[in-house]
Amino acid sequence: MKLHILGCYAATPRTMTSPTSQVLEIKGHMFLIDCGEGTQVQLRKNKIKFSRINHIFISHLHGDHFFGLPGLVSTFRLLGRDREMHIYGPKGIKEVITLLLKLGSSWTNYKLTFHELTSKEPQLIFEDDKVTVETVPLDHRVYTNGFLFKEKLGERKLNIEAVARYKIDTAYFQNIKNGKDISSDDGRVIPNSELTFDTPRPKSYAFCSDTAYSPEIVPQIMGTTALYHESTFLESEAHLSGKTRHSTAKEAAAIAKAAKVGKLILGHYSTRYRSITLFKEEAQEVFQNVELADDGKVFEF
Amino acid sequence: MKLHILGCYAATPRTMTSPTSQVLEIKGHMFLIDCGEGTQVQLRKNKIKFSRINHIFISHLHGDHFFGLPGLVSTFRLLGRDREMHIYGPKGIKEVITLLLKLGSSWTNYKLTFHELTSKEPQLIFEDDKVTVETVPLDHRVYTNGFLFKEKLGERKLNIEAVARYKIDTAYFQNIKNGKDISSDDGRVIPNSELTFDTPRPKSYAFCSDTAYSPEIVPQIMGTTALYHESTFLESEAHLSGKTRHSTAKEAAAIAKAAKVGKLILGHYSTRYRSITLFKEEAQEVFQNVELADDGKVFEF
Repeated sequence: MKLHILGCYAATPRTMTSPTSQVLEIKGHMFLIDCGEGTQVQLRKNKIKFSRINHIFISHLHGDHFFGLPGLVSTFRLLGRDREMHIYGPKGIKEVITLLLKLGSSWTNYKLTFHELTSKEPQLIFEDDKVTVETVPLDHRVYTNGFLFKEKLGERKLNIEAVARYKIDTAYFQNIKNGKDISSDDGRVIPNSELTFDTPRPKSYAFCSDTAYSPEIVPQIMGTTALYHESTFLESEAHLSGKTRHSTAKEAAAIAKAAKVGKLILGHYSTRYRSITLFKEEAQEVFQNVELADDGKVFEF
Repeated sequence: MKLHILGCYAATPRTMTSPTSQVLEIKGHMFLIDCGEGTQVQLRKNKIKFSRINHIFISHLHGDHFFGLPGLVSTFRLLGRDREMHIYGPKGIKEVITLLLKLGSSWTNYKLTFHELTSKEPQLIFEDDKVTVETVPLDHRVYTNGFLFKEKLGERKLNIEAVARYKIDTAYFQNIKNGKDISSDDGRVIPNSELTFDTPRPKSYAFCSDTAYSPEIVPQIMGTTALYHESTFLESEAHLSGKTRHSTAKEAAAIAKAAKVGKLILGHYSTRYRSITLFKEEAQEVFQNVELADDGKVFEF
């Protein structure tokens, strides 16, 4: 799993920093998460092929998380895209993108499918044979979802020696890889654990931005390999987090600790701060494995 | 008069080039003309103070001319703006900006006034004591206006020696500066030309993008100090200009020649070209005084 941070600063695009956008590479997918103004330029800078993106997840309809979407939708058309594009986001996203296209008297030459979200409970919104994506309802000033991306448990690995020893016909191999036990000709049951090796534990990634401190999300993201949690403020501005429904670095770390995640990645820094190093220091008072997102940074897990 | 080119390339924002946006400094105004995605970052790069912009003119509702507007409107709010902002653009612009703000549950804390345009005839859309702005109806795939910015003829300059010689009371000076003749006590009329010097000829700037070759605009922009005319294509792609309702460099030059403008500035280059130097060469086969716009370039006239 590979996470490309295209932008991770709050509020407004600036000369050197970009608003929220990231690409998660997972099991052959390139999922675009949020799309602040300038995302298409960030995609180019980070050498991510536009054609590999087929799913876009929008957390909420504040400008710094989706004002890059209309331009990206138009650019896909100019690039001659013909594959279907899926956009997941709060209700209203279809109306506004449709209106923008209509005002320009243009339409996409590819199928554009909107999956509008309204539920305040976690929802499975994408599933194939390798990956699931669920919403993680967050607590912000407008309707907002985080997203939880999970690898599925893969096939078990065949123990070649064992199947040879038991003289098992290849016709049964797929069942064995799927975890089934096998009955031998003499009626004896050979347990699957004797015929296969464990597969690596499936990895998962939770994107939680924007949100106030929200312990309600902990059970859902429990044990996640990596958690990106917004940390708009340092402790010195903690008084602003309640009113604006944002989190401090320490609050993000408290969520990471309670959810026993593998790694916490901080981002969505307020542009008031000249340096982001204090975010890590303050979070590490609560939770050790903290990394700082920054534009152009790539995480592998 | 000073023209800051923030972006002058067609279609999509890229790593090194920006879509259309420019700022015209004229008689104390900073007029923003078009607002492609990334305009607010270009404003920062070009060190133009956001607070000095009070009027935004949008030619048409294709993304590369206005997808930067929602973000700019939001950023003005974040910067604590309280002065009224005027936006001039095609009908529909109010609906879409309003919808975007509504979806984000935010509104501006400054007055946002839309001047929606629908006329296919030239219209006076702004006037104060020093400047007028008119629409220049253009021929594009959607409803599009260029804009003609004109300085007004200023007060005439008082000839101090002459008014002393005629012993004219200072009470008459304003009338004289306004161009009035004066009757002396003995009933003789002193013509204004004896009491004043000519003021410099007022300057003007015409922005014409996007448009097919459209000689209908020539009478309106006749004698303009500087004309920015789109030139999406070179001669090698001339066959595309009719269908897309864009112009070639040569067609832009033909308009400049017919309108006897002082200077032609080319821009809105298709991103298919690796270099823009040929645009100038091809235009100069028709009209001599040609300059190439480029992002970050400043013209003074």
